[in-house]
Formats: sequence, C-alpha cells, structure tokens
Amino acid sequence: MSQHMPPAHPFDDDKLKEECGVFGVVGVTDAANFVALGLHALQHRGQEAGGIVTHDPETGFQSVRRFGYVRDNFTDPATMAMLPGSIGIGHVRYSTAGNKGQTAIRDVQPFFGEFAMGGAAIAHNGNITNANALRRELIDRGSIFQSSSDSECIIHLMARSLQKSIPDRMEDALRRVEGAFSVVAMTRTKLIGVRDPLGVRPLVLGQLGDGWALASETCALDIIGADFVREIDPGEMVVISEKGVESLRPFRPRRSRFCIFEHVYFSRPDSILGGRSVYETREAIGKELAREAPVEADLVCPVPDSGTPAAIGYSQQSGIPYGMGIIRNQYMGRTFIEPTEQIRNMGVRLKLNVNRALIKGKRVVLVDDSVVRGTTSRKIKEMILDAGAREVHFRIASPPTAWPCFYGVDTPQREKLLAATMSEEEMRSHLQVDSLRFITLDGLYRAVGEANGRNPAEPQYCDACFSGEYPVEPADMIEQGFRMKSAAE
Amino acid sequence: MSQHMPPAHPFDDDKLKEECGVFGVVGVTDAANFVALGLHALQHRGQEAGGIVTHDPETGFQSVRRFGYVRDNFTDPATMAMLPGSIGIGHVRYSTAGNKGQTAIRDVQPFFGEFAMGGAAIAHNGNITNANALRRELIDRGSIFQSSSDSECIIHLMARSLQKSIPDRMEDALRRVEGAFSVVAMTRTKLIGVRDPLGVRPLVLGQLGDGWALASETCALDIIGADFVREIDPGEMVVISEKGVESLRPFRPRRSRFCIFEHVYFSRPDSILGGRSVYETREAIGKELAREAPVEADLVCPVPDSGTPAAIGYSQQSGIPYGMGIIRNQYMGRTFIEPTEQIRNMGVRLKLNVNRALIKGKRVVLVDDSVVRGTTSRKIKEMILDAGAREVHFRIASPPTAWPCFYGVDTPQREKLLAATMSEEEMRSHLQVDSLRFITLDGLYRAVGEANGRNPAEPQYCDACFSGEYPVEPADMIEQGFRMKSAAE
Amino acid sequence: MSQHMPPAHPFDDDKLKEECGVFGVVGVTDAANFVALGLHALQHRGQEAGGIVTHDPETGFQSVRRFGYVRDNFTDPATMAMLPGSIGIGHVRYSTAGNKGQTAIRDVQPFFGEFAMGGAAIAHNGNITNANALRRELIDRGSIFQSSSDSECIIHLMARSLQKSIPDRMEDALRRVEGAFSVVAMTRTKLIGVRDPLGVRPLVLGQLGDGWALASETCALDIIGADFVREIDPGEMVVISEKGVESLRPFRPRRSRFCIFEHVYFSRPDSILGGRSVYETREAIGKELAREAPVEADLVCPVPDSGTPAAIGYSQQSGIPYGMGIIRNQYMGRTFIEPTEQIRNMGVRLKLNVNRALIKGKRVVLVDDSVVRGTTSRKIKEMILDAGAREVHFRIASPPTAWPCFYGVDTPQREKLLAATMSEEEMRSHLQVDSLRFITLDGLYRAVGEANGRNPAEPQYCDACFSGEYPVEPADMIEQGFRMKSAAE
Amino acid sequence: MSQHMPPAHPFDDDKLKEECGVFGVVGVTDAANFVALGLHALQHRGQEAGGIVTHDPETGFQSVRRFGYVRDNFTDPATMAMLPGSIGIGHVRYSTAGNKGQTAIRDVQPFFGEFAMGGAAIAHNGNITNANALRRELIDRGSIFQSSSDSECIIHLMARSLQKSIPDRMEDALRRVEGAFSVVAMTRTKLIGVRDPLGVRPLVLGQLGDGWALASETCALDIIGADFVREIDPGEMVVISEKGVESLRPFRPRRSRFCIFEHVYFSRPDSILGGRSVYETREAIGKELAREAPVEADLVCPVPDSGTPAAIGYSQQSGIPYGMGIIRNQYMGRTFIEPTEQIRNMGVRLKLNVNRALIKGKRVVLVDDSVVRGTTSRKIKEMILDAGAREVHFRIASPPTAWPCFYGVDTPQREKLLAATMSEEEMRSHLQVDSLRFITLDGLYRAVGEANGRNPAEPQYCDACFSGEYPVEPADMIEQGFRMKSAAE
Repeated sequence: MSQHMPPAHPFDDDKLKEECGVFGVVGVTDAANFVALGLHALQHRGQEAGGIVTHDPETGFQSVRRFGYVRDNFTDPATMAMLPGSIGIGHVRYSTAGNKGQTAIRDVQPFFGEFAMGGAAIAHNGNITNANALRRELIDRGSIFQSSSDSECIIHLMARSLQKSIPDRMEDALRRVEGAFSVVAMTRTKLIGVRDPLGVRPLVLGQLGDGWALASETCALDIIGADFVREIDPGEMVVISEKGVESLRPFRPRRSRFCIFEHVYFSRPDSILGGRSVYETREAIGKELAREAPVEADLVCPVPDSGTPAAIGYSQQSGIPYGMGIIRNQYMGRTFIEPTEQIRNMGVRLKLNVNRALIKGKRVVLVDDSVVRGTTSRKIKEMILDAGAREVHFRIASPPTAWPCFYGVDTPQREKLLAATMSEEEMRSHLQVDSLRFITLDGLYRAVGEANGRNPAEPQYCDACFSGEYPVEPADMIEQGFRMKSAAE
Repeated sequence: MSQHMPPAHPFDDDKLKEECGVFGVVGVTDAANFVALGLHALQHRGQEAGGIVTHDPETGFQSVRRFGYVRDNFTDPATMAMLPGSIGIGHVRYSTAGNKGQTAIRDVQPFFGEFAMGGAAIAHNGNITNANALRRELIDRGSIFQSSSDSECIIHLMARSLQKSIPDRMEDALRRVEGAFSVVAMTRTKLIGVRDPLGVRPLVLGQLGDGWALASETCALDIIGADFVREIDPGEMVVISEKGVESLRPFRPRRSRFCIFEHVYFSRPDSILGGRSVYETREAIGKELAREAPVEADLVCPVPDSGTPAAIGYSQQSGIPYGMGIIRNQYMGRTFIEPTEQIRNMGVRLKLNVNRALIKGKRVVLVDDSVVRGTTSRKIKEMILDAGAREVHFRIASPPTAWPCFYGVDTPQREKLLAATMSEEEMRSHLQVDSLRFITLDGLYRAVGEANGRNPAEPQYCDACFSGEYPVEPADMIEQGFRMKSAAE
Repeated sequence: MSQHMPPAHPFDDDKLKEECGVFGVVGVTDAANFVALGLHALQHRGQEAGGIVTHDPETGFQSVRRFGYVRDNFTDPATMAMLPGSIGIGHVRYSTAGNKGQTAIRDVQPFFGEFAMGGAAIAHNGNITNANALRRELIDRGSIFQSSSDSECIIHLMARSLQKSIPDRMEDALRRVEGAFSVVAMTRTKLIGVRDPLGVRPLVLGQLGDGWALASETCALDIIGADFVREIDPGEMVVISEKGVESLRPFRPRRSRFCIFEHVYFSRPDSILGGRSVYETREAIGKELAREAPVEADLVCPVPDSGTPAAIGYSQQSGIPYGMGIIRNQYMGRTFIEPTEQIRNMGVRLKLNVNRALIKGKRVVLVDDSVVRGTTSRKIKEMILDAGAREVHFRIASPPTAWPCFYGVDTPQREKLLAATMSEEEMRSHLQVDSLRFITLDGLYRAVGEANGRNPAEPQYCDACFSGEYPVEPADMIEQGFRMKSAAE
Repeated sequence: MSQHMPPAHPFDDDKLKEECGVFGVVGVTDAANFVALGLHALQHRGQEAGGIVTHDPETGFQSVRRFGYVRDNFTDPATMAMLPGSIGIGHVRYSTAGNKGQTAIRDVQPFFGEFAMGGAAIAHNGNITNANALRRELIDRGSIFQSSSDSECIIHLMARSLQKSIPDRMEDALRRVEGAFSVVAMTRTKLIGVRDPLGVRPLVLGQLGDGWALASETCALDIIGADFVREIDPGEMVVISEKGVESLRPFRPRRSRFCIFEHVYFSRPDSILGGRSVYETREAIGKELAREAPVEADLVCPVPDSGTPAAIGYSQQSGIPYGMGIIRNQYMGRTFIEPTEQIRNMGVRLKLNVNRALIKGKRVVLVDDSVVRGTTSRKIKEMILDAGAREVHFRIASPPTAWPCFYGVDTPQREKLLAATMSEEEMRSHLQVDSLRFITLDGLYRAVGEANGRNPAEPQYCDACFSGEYPVEPADMIEQGFRMKSAAE
C-alpha cells in the first residue's frame, strides 16, 4: 500500500531484519519530542510503522500511530501538539508476529488499555513464543483482541490480574509469557522497562537532567543528549518515576543469552554494547576474519553499508588497500518500472553502482556482514566481474545463517536460507566466486570479546540462527510445524 | 511547503550545490522509463523537482513535472503510462536562477514550446548569465513568459528564429545566450545535446543497443546499462536520430574551462570524468593533501559522505589508520521539533553521531571536501571534542571557497563565504581547531591530472569559486550589484 | 480535522440530528457493494464517518472504517476488493454518545469481536442509556475497551456470555442494556436485526432475489432494488441465514413508542413509515398546520429543503400560492474565510439566497420543520425582510422542541433550546416576526395518522423532545446532572 | 482522474452545460475572499476547476488555479494568504474549447501575461470562434502557447499590441476575436469587464461600499452583499479603478442576441436577468406550457431540481396539484461499483428515488427543463411506471434542442441530440410515454417577456440550439467539418 515506505537499505530483502525499537522518557518537558528523536535514531530497527503514547494530567493518554518513517510522521507541530505531557513511550516496528503483509494500523504499538486502576501503554521489542496459546485462553475467558499482535496478550493479562498497581499487574502478566522481550511501558506517572530473563534483546538506561530515558540502543540516548547510565539487566524490571529508578527482579534468575547478531548487523555502529562500540566490534570481526581466512588480493571492498567496518578491519589486518569499489545510491526507494529487456540486473543498479575504474583488473576481496538467501551476493559478484575484476573473494563477517530466528527477527523460512541446504564449498560453487569464507562461530565469539571462544556447554550468547540451539522453545512455531534441530544434526 | 522534499545530504545548507542534472534518450521502447532511471542516478544534482517530456506519434508531446524525488514521482505505472514514446528528455533541479524559495511548478524543466514547424522541449544544466537582458528584450517584442527560469529564454528565442528546422532554430537561439549551459533537447524525432563553448558543465554520450542517451554524468548511463561512448565536446552540438549522431560546431571555438568543482564534490564518485573515476581523483586529492599538509595523528576520519574518498587517500599516503569516527543517520529528513534547551546541537545530532568509543583520547584528522560558510565544520569539531578527542586537525580537499559561482551552482552571497573574509589562520582560529589546512590550487590541479599544476595565464579549468577569475562575465549579477575581483586583489 | 466532512444541510447546526443509519445484507454476491449503496441512501442519518464489515470463508472478517462520505470512501475498486463475501453490515454515524468532537476512527462502527465460538460484528442506531455503568463493571472484570462508544459494551457483554451461539450471546447482552437501539449484526453466516422493546428507532426488512436486507429506512432498500417486506417489530430479533428469516422475541413485551421526529425531520421523504410515505405525512402536517394556524398572505415559501413538503401542504390547504422564495446553494461545504465587516450574515448567504424579485412586497408564510435554537430562523427572517417582504409569518411543522433527546439524536443542552425558556409569544417577539405558530402536539399526532390525537395516558409515540416524557430513564445523563421534568412542570 | 470532482447535478451528462463563470472585484480589503465567495455562488456554471489571481503592490500578481470545487480549494487560510491584495479576478470552468477530457491545470483560467508595461490577468466566459486561425497566426510569429485554451489568444494578442496602456491593448486584441465572450480582466490597479457586441453571455456590475464587482450573474453579488447596479451592455467595455467606472464602446454596434438558454437552464433561479428573477421566468414558462399543452392528470411533478419552477408554474396554471414525486439524493457523487445484475438502473437510483406512495395509480405530468440526448428522460419514465403511475406525460420547458452551441456551452455532437434526428412524435414514441410536448419557440419568447414572440427577421435572442440560426459563424467548427443549417432545412 502506498503509505508503506520503501526499504532504506540496499538488499533489505536479503538480510535478517530486526523487527522493533523501543524508547521511553519521563520527567522532561514535551516528552513526545524526545520520543520522536529517540525513535528516529532507532529507525534502522523498524521502518514500517511507528507510534507514540504520552500522558498529560489534563488530556489523559494520547496516542498517534502511523505507517511510515518517524521523520515523516512525528515532525509537524500539529501532530506533536496532540501528544502533550512529560512522560511518553514509542515504538518503531518492522512487522513482528502479526500477519505479515497485512499489517493494519491497529497492529502498530504501543498498545493501550484502561484498567480499573487507570490506564497503561506498552511496547516491546522481541517475540512472545507462546502467544497463540495465551490468546486462545484469553478469548475463551471473554477478552476481545483488537490486533493480531503478540504484544496485546500482555495488556489483556494485565487487565485480568488481581493486583492493584500497574507494575504489579505487569509482573503478573510477564510471568505468563515466554520468549524474548524488551518492554517499555508507562502509567500516568511511571516509566517501566523490562528485559526477559535471558536478555536476548537490548535495553539501556539514560539520564537527561532530572529526566530518564529507556532505549533499545545507546545511539538513541546520544541524539537527545542523554548520558548512558547502564544496560538494564536480563530479568530486571525498572520502575522509574520522578523519585528515581527502582529495580525489581520479577523472574527466576537464568544465565543470560544476548543476541550475538546485534553485534553483527542489527545495532547501529555508533551504539555501545558491552562497553565497546559496535563499530569496533565489527572492525575486530574483520581482523579475525583476515586471520582465519587470508587471501592474496589487490583491494578490500565492503558491500555497503553494513560490510564497511569489517572491511576496514580486514584491510588493516591484511595490509591489502581498502577502497569503495561499490557506490551506493543515496536516493533509493520505490520500485521503478522495468524498461525492456535491454536492461539486466536493474534492481541492483538502482541501489548500487560499481566503481569500474577502481575495480578493473584487480583481485577483489568483498566483505559482507552475512549471507541469508544469497541472491544479492550473486548479483554483486556479477557486477564486479562485469566491471573487469580479475578475481572475486567473498569474506563474510558472520557464520553461515542456517536457522530462522523466532525472537523478534524477520527471517525467511528455513528452506530459503542458503546455508540450511549447502555446505560452504557448495555455496562458493553456487555463487561462482574464487573463494568464499565465513568467520567461524568461535572466531565471532572471540571478536565480541570472549577470549576463549564459545562455551558449547553453556553458550554465552543466543546464536540460534547459526547453531540451531534455541534457548527458549518456540512453542507457537513448533505447533505450526517447525522442526527443531535433532540430536543427530 | 509540504511537497518540497527534505535535503538528503547532511549539511546541504553548508555546501555548494549543483543545481541541475539532464538526461535524454532516443530509439528505445518506453523511453520515459529510461529517463526516470537516468534522472534517479542524477538525483544528487537536484532534489527539489523533476520533469520528463516524451513524444509519441499518436499522443504527441507529453509532459509530467513534479516537486520531489524521481523515485516518488516517476515510478507508478499510471504516471509512466502518461509518457509514451521512444524519445524523451528529463531534468532534475535544485533551483537555478528562478526566484529562490518561490519555485512554482511552472519553473520546473523541461520547457516545451510549439513552433510553426512543430514542437520542441528543452532542459539545461547551468546558468544563462545574460538572461535578464534577453527577457526584457523578448517581452518588449510580445513574448509571454510562463516561468521565472532563465531557460525559458532559449525557447522564446527559438520561437522567433526565422530558421526552418528546430536544430537550426536552436543554433540561432544559443548564439544569443551567454554563460554555462549543457542542454538536452528534443523534437518529435531528434535528440539534441549542446555544451557551451567553455564546456563548464558536463555532458556525456552513451549507446544502448540501437538507441542513444545523453546524460550529465556516466553514472546515469550505468544505471540503464548503456555504454559510455564519449564526452560531448565544449561548443559541440549533437543531433541524434535513428540514423545516428551528427556533430555540429555552432559556436566560435574557445579554450575549454571545465568546472573543477565537479571533481571535488558535485559529481558522483562512480562517474568517470576525463577517463578516471571521480572516486580515484578524490583519493588522489587526499594523497596530495597528505603530502602538502602532513600531521602527527592517530586516526583519519572522513566527514561523511563526501569526505570519504579523500580521507582514504590521506590515510593511505600518511599511514595513519582510517576509521569511521562519525556515523551518518540514514533516515535524515524533515526538521524535528526542538525539545527544550536540554538538547544542544540537535540539528547536527539528527544527521551525524560520533563514534565515541573510537574517538576517545585520539588525535583525529578530519577530512572534508570543502568549507563554505564554516558553520558545520564548527559543529562537527565540537562533537568530536565532546566525545573526548585529544586533538582535531581539519584537512580540506579543496582550496578556500572565496567567490560565488554564477554558472548553475547555488552559492551563498560572497560575504557569507568564510574564506571571503578570513585568512587560513583566521579560519583556524575561528573554528578553534589544532590545525586547518586546505589543498593548494596547484595541488588540486595536480590531483586532477595536470602534472604541472595550474597555468595562471590560461587556466585549464573554471576555478572562479577559488580564484575569483570568471571565464564568462556574469552580466546579470553585475547589473544587480556584484563586484568582480579588482586587479589589486 | 481535515478528514471530517462538511455538513451537507444548511443550518445543520440548528437542527436535531439523527446520529446513525444501519444496513445489512446476506445472500448476495459482493455484499459490500450493496452495503455501500444502502449506506449512501442513509447518508442523511450520519455524515461524519462510515464503516463496512464483510465475511468471506477465505479471508474471514474484513473491515474498513473511514471518516467522510460513503461516496468518497466506498466507491473505489481497491477498497471494495478488500471487502469480499456474500454477507455484510455497515453503519454511518454522526457522533453518538462517544466524546463529541474527539471522534477517533476507533469509535466508528461496526465493532468486531472474536469470541471462542467465532467472530461477530455489530452496529447500532440509537443510544444505550446505561452505558457508563456497564462500562465500569466490564473494566473491573478485565475487559479492555478500544473505543469511547456505548456500542462497544454490547460486544464485551457478548464475549463474556456463557451461551454457545452468537445469537444467544447477543440475547444475553441485549437484556443487560437499556435505551433505544436498532441493531444489525452478523456472524460468519447469519445476519441479525434487533429493535429495542419500545421500537424507538426504525428498522426494516427487505428481500432481493434469494438475499435479504435490513435497513434503517426503506429508501435504502429502493436503491439496491430490494422489495420492502415489513418493519421489524419493537422487541423483535430476526436471525437471517440462507435458510430464511427466524423471528425471536428476547425481551419482555412493552407498548411501542416510535420516535415521532422521524416523521417530522429525520427520515427521508421517500421512505415509508407506517404504510405511508414520509413526504405525504409531512404534506399532511402542512395541511393540519394551515387549519390550525391560518393567515392572510401572498406566498407560501419553504425553508429548504426540509420544510418543502409541509409548505406544499400548507399552500394546498390554504390556497395561498407556493413559491421558492429561498434558493439553496447546491455546493455548500467548508467554511469560507470571512472577508471584512462589509459582509453581514455571510454564513447564511453561503447556504441560501433570497429570490428577491419574488419576495418583494409580499406577505410571506415561511414553513420550517422545527425550531431548535432559533438562530437560523432569525437570520432567514432578516434575509426575507431585507429582500423587501411586507410581512413574515413563521409556521413550524412540529411543536416547540423543549427537551433534549437521549435516544441517539444529537440535541443541544436543554438551556440552548429556544422553547425551553420561552413561550410561543416570547419566541415570536424574539424572532421579531409578524406571527409564529407551531403545530400542536395533538395536531402532529393527527397528521401522522392518529385520528384522535395523542393519548396522554399512554402516548403512542416517543415525543420526549416536545413533552419531556421520557419512556426510558436516561440513567447516564441523570448521573451527569440532567434534571427530569418535575410533576409540577 | 482523482482530482476531478464528481458532477453535482443528477444527469449532468444529459444536460447542456454552461462552461464558465467569471468574477472580479476592486477596492476591497482581501479581495481574494470576495472572489472566492463570488465563484462559489457561480459554481453551477463550472465545476471542473477554478482559479483566482490577485495583485498587491508588495507581492505583485499571485495566482492559484486548482481542479475541483471552490469550497475545497479556496477556503483554507494558507491558500488565501497566498492571494493578498485589494483587486482580484476569478474563474470557474467546465471545460471550454480546450481538449476535452485532457484538461491540464495550465488550461485553467485566469491567464496571466507580463507585458512591457506591466502584467495583466484575464478570464472569460464564452468561446472564441476563430481561435484556431488566430493561434496559427500567433505561433507563426513566434508566440509560445502554454495552454490549449482559446482564451490564451487574447493574452498573446495583447502582448503584441503596439498600444501603451493595457485597456488599449485589450481593445486591440478583442477586435481581432470573434464569438461570444464576457471577459473580466485586471491590471495592477484596474478591473476591466467586456461583453462581445452581441452580448451572448451575461455580465453584471455591482457596488460594495467603495468597491466594485463584476460577475456572470447577480447571485454572486448577493453572496458578497453587493448591490446590483446594472448589466454591462453588449459591446461595452468598463474600466474600473478606485476613481470609478469608465464605459467604453470598442466594437462596431450590433443588435444584441442574449442566450435564451440562460433563462431556461444555465442561470441560477435567484439571479436577475432583464429585471426579472430567473425563477419567475421559469414559472412563466411553465404557465405558458400549461396553456400550450394542457393534459388531464392528477399530479404535476418536477424532474429535480431544474424542472421545479416550471412545474410549479404548470401546476398553478392548470390547477393540477404539485407534488415531489421524485426525490433527489443530496449526497450524489462518485460512481459506485455496480453490484450484480440484480440491480437495474442503478445509476439513476443513486441520484433519484421515486416517492412510490405518492405516484402510485396517478396520471403524472413530468416537467423537465430540456431534452438533450433523451437517455435520462427514458430512465425516469421507467422509474415512474415501475412505481405504479397510471400515465406519464412529459412537458418540456424549452423547444427541442436540435443544434449544438458553439458559444461557450458543452453540447453533444449534433447526431447525439435526440431532436436532431426525430420529430416530436418520434421522440414520444421513442420515450414510450403517453404524451410529450415541448414549449414552442414563440411560447418561450413570450415567457421571457417578448409579448409578440420571436421576430424571425431579427431574433431578439440567440436561440441557435433550437433554431440552428447562428449569429456568429462558428469558423473553427466549420473548418473541422460542422455543417450549418441549409436554406432548405
């Protein structure tokens, strides 16, 4: 539909896609403006739609939810005037577990519910893996769902809780849900943040004068000029009011399993994860990759833009010069009408152009962050060869992506993943390149700071997309026919 | 106004801006689709508006002109169906010499006129420096202008020519105009391209099967899969029909003066100018700059995106590691409402974020393509220092911009140009950086391939923005009070 | 807000306004097209917004709800293709009991709920007088309301019913609600219609080949070419499937009290109520008025358009010629910017113009349907006098409107009603006309067919707006401070 | 296209359509608001598009031209603020002689031109019958047309005039054009009005305080509260400034031939033509028709809305009761999707509904203003019979329309006009009605006030659509193949 925005990354259709970003703020004048800025900084986590809820004593809760970019929806004074108050939360989404391709505006978060004790709004990043079962149970008992979103379960569970306060009701509700979820919520006066016990998805706390902010990533604190205080702990619930930050632990403690793919691709390079900038981690991945998979070549060239830091690292470690052999068109967008067959590969030309004069006659190392379906890797390789490259060597800054993610990431079905059906050599042959090498899982763990690599007994991260080892059983998906990795695999 | 698109580059307001891109094609099925693609590739040359004219024997000339991006205006099937035919031309514009800030759709090119012998459409990149005088003369004789654009003079001069054929009328008309102009025009069957005698603005010829294309830059040939044949010569007029390319020389020959700033900033890095990619030239500028203005430092960091190739060159020449210390937000756009004074420098934060962890404690070389008003250089310096950089050294890949351009480029008035009123040292002090160095004019000439640097007697390029030496007298501007460089300066 | 349509009647702001129209159809191909047509014919009952829900075995329930006219929202093929199926219901609304002036799209009917046994959609015309109390009770028990509409209570009551089938759940729910309600509802296969026990609001049944339709008025059957079968009885519930029409009586029987104002103003003149066209009833009112309140005059002139049939009746009975002394502008709409004070009464001029040549020097009888706040009566009188009328005599086709309606009609607060604070003579003097006469309540009853007039012990109609005798206690309004007519009044 | 508004009259497609309305005002604060109001009152003369030009010393000439209704385009403060000044003119149009169905915004009047002595804007109602020849001549001499409108010729002729002042240039220009034209024009300080020598189209002068207004009809003076001063004479040119009204006679005097169809259908009933309201004239036509063509019947029923005054007259003269047997839907508009074949005649049902209870069993006289193609007459007859009418008698308030109009009215080609190919009896038989009678041409002349009927030697009106006698030779149409009435016909 026309109100759905075009993708802003080249080859978005061949990437794993983070599905949500959340942001909340309390104790600031005109909170909605801060939320809009925070969401704008998190736009890479979801481009389909966004919403903001605020509360003001005079007008009560106000909500605006729209398809499209934050910059287009939450910048005009008339809209922002509809969102008064000093507390607010917001959400950007790609699609989450609602019906793909049929997103209605009623599926766009934050969700709002009025309870006997007052109202609350809630938004989350992640996925509730037992949402289907919960929904059936709630409908049987008379709840009416307004959306097809898994997040709405939380609101209904809260409405039915016998607890008095909203934070207590939220605890009640969250103890019933399984999966990966970083939640921001708000009552009339309190900003609430929760991370699931495994801490799969990120959530950080910032301070801004007397006010506080919660965000999926630190880059959203930077844009509003807030200081980064700390990450919310896995399993922690913070309840923030003008009095300060109260920390609760509503869940049984478990060993954390942060999503390793946030380091590889999802998070913005200028965000800080585990005390280090994501950019530096990616550069380190490139260096590790250069050590693991060296090659004789004339030029290290990133697949823009996500492959850039790893390419710089690869160049630094290997000593092979770095150059921008592929130029990205900054005005990408809607699909042009394909002219006649005189044009081949137009889709790719719309997004990228090869720097022919630079590539010609060279042995080129192409560094990309991941290979999902492999369709674009193949097109890029052809462009590079058409431009006269002598050799093409792919180096991938993550292990082969062989399993879908069920924790808030949009992945193709397993059979569409190139690595689910092919070995590394088969992939190389399929892509018809001179060499193809992925970083090893141990290498990736080393690059993110685990000097001894992955602990196979108790992996330090969620790496299910690479390993097939799911830290939370994807109950809804198994019900729909997904087959877990067998012991034999 | 809401239909005007936001700028797509950070700090567009502190750059010289190319004001137009032109494209034309003949001898292909559904020419409009090719024109749309070509214009999309030239979008960096003008984001405010665009137009396409085509001709089909059945429907005659058809025209669509709109504010906004090509991707938004020329992609839906209904619009494209309004533009049938195998010949077409198009234009993207920033603003040209029409009234700034009041652009009406009637000022958007291409312009069309019906003459006794049939119709013609015309679009140009550049500026007619005697447009005011011509307009007065034409109105006195009964011509009615539909726009405030200088380009419309050409159509009226053609209408009044006593020549029979349209190419002949165009020759007549162009001999009356002064300035810098690369024209694409079309009749029912012929595609016409002209460059002014000095060849200030670029224009290239491509071939696509049996069809031909004209474009401001080669990147627009790449996107449609056309082969780059050659540049149109300064002072050359090509008349292209299904029979082939006819080359005419309507002007008195002069020594060419191509715009050197096309190399520095205007052209896309993947375009080819003078047989070399613009990317390589910029890398060479960076190397030259490293030789001319070395410094002890820990990190070479580009001001994204236009400073990137020169920064890579500087790093390679100097051996100082290259890193992306500043990250650009990909979703820039409209202006957000400024929250309270708690946020400083929000404008800059919307566009860029500093990679704090990378910058902290380092001596940083910041490489930018140019300094125009200096406002953003100052903001970036502050962000870098706030992030903990130990030293900041600016290196600029062009000489000081001290004079406005009157040849189709949007420049601030002279008194707004930092270099018009300050010496290099005064600028350094004004920006409060540890060092500031511009490439020399000779260094720039060397980097673009003139081994002996600039020939002061007969400069090989138009470098008026640096030198104040204008190869064509800006008559209209002098009439309006502009004061040329005196012999004493 | 811009999406809210302008009023289409002159002086809508000085009329009682019916607040809803409902329509449903089953057993026809592409039901949505029939619903759109039916709603279009009922547009006079609500112009603010409209919605359609359909069900198709393949796509399930689909819903489109929009602000504005049916003709603008439900005519394009893309929208209608989103509403497949052979069963559907729809609703047009003015505003109902939701927050006035803040209508959100989520307040627009039909409402939909998914129950354990399957989904149902529901729309109603009227008002639930105990909605506030029901809502509080439901929220306490964990229901989450999506709207501020009273209708949503019905859906939540249905969700919590322990009955199995949806018609049974609806019976359960409707027995809890008080007020005036004509309901159309649908399950996957059944179309349901209900009128409250007093039958305050209309609902009719039509047949179209093998299909069936329910509508607020017969004019909506005419537009789709359906035959008018009968009115649904007060207190009756019909459950219509492909097998036929089943009639149930879920409520305790009561004596009916149909809204007499439907005859006076709400219903369209070509609809049939009680076996007679509304047009003929209004003509009969005009005749009765001529008998009750004769006057010597030269011209009978309607206040267009609603006063027209009564004026024709008055002319026929009195023998005074009928003429269109006031011409209505057919292109009414948004509010123009008021020019300087040179223009008086612009608002009225935008809607009406006096036929000066016809009026000049005449004694004019102006026939209007009702006087609510009296503001427009006064303006019209001034226009008529300005145009040179010798005398102005107002004749009103309904008794003085002295009490607000709480049964689905938008009325001003009691103190704004002219007749609430003034006697007939005071009103005449206030309006400064030569005479002012309202039809008597008995006269109105005679005109609608009650030969003996009103039965004061057991009035045959709801005439609360004239008499202050409310057949259902308006509990929510009393809670909010409304004071019923005392025995003394 | 979506921006084109729906027709607002039922059966617009089977009516002759006036193609323009003009309005101008000088000497008032915020002239644009007055122009908007005036155009709103003239909307019945053209619904496709409208434009306003104003002049203010500070901002110069400003113009806004849009597709759609005045009420939608010229009511918001932002638009009106773009049109400052105390002088302005405006235009509403149906389509005029431009390419039908392909109207571009550049064809929308007023047109503006900048001449050596200053600018002027011009708008006209009517048609220039030698526009094609003029256009060819102007193009040969180097004029560039921006539109396909005949009106643009006037501006180019003015641009080429050797006169100094704009009124003088306009005289020069108008002496070259043939046809029917009522012009309003403006310079920076003067409002100009002109009627062609025959005075085919109307133009009236009004006074408003110290200001003056020109309008196609008096109803546009009423809406702004201006006093009607007089009609502009045929062949008169008025030049109005703050000093007063100067009257010129630039043309050779001729006997006037006002369009008689303005009385029948084009003008609004509340406008005054020749000292009498159009309503009264139409009532008189109905009376004349009752005398010429009486019939035994039970009900006189208008085809709404244009047949209403004549039906009232027919009823009064014949003594047969008047009743609204056909009710018009007030919310007409876009085309609904046709449901299945279960619905016959849906198009007609969308616009009208029969008042069945009133019609049933009666002998009905249907009074319509004209019969053009006869398609709707036939549908209405069927509706009436379906509703149970016993007899149907058509009475038409104009003679048979047998010839197209070339003076600013949109008529079907001659072969589409029912009366061009059939006698009155053949038409009756074709329409399958009990009787069909048109008023005679003499009867019509009597009704408009010519006691002795039509003077065949020197007809007092232009009645070419009835008589085929064209007072100005339609040169362009003859060139395109139109065949005038032969002596034998």
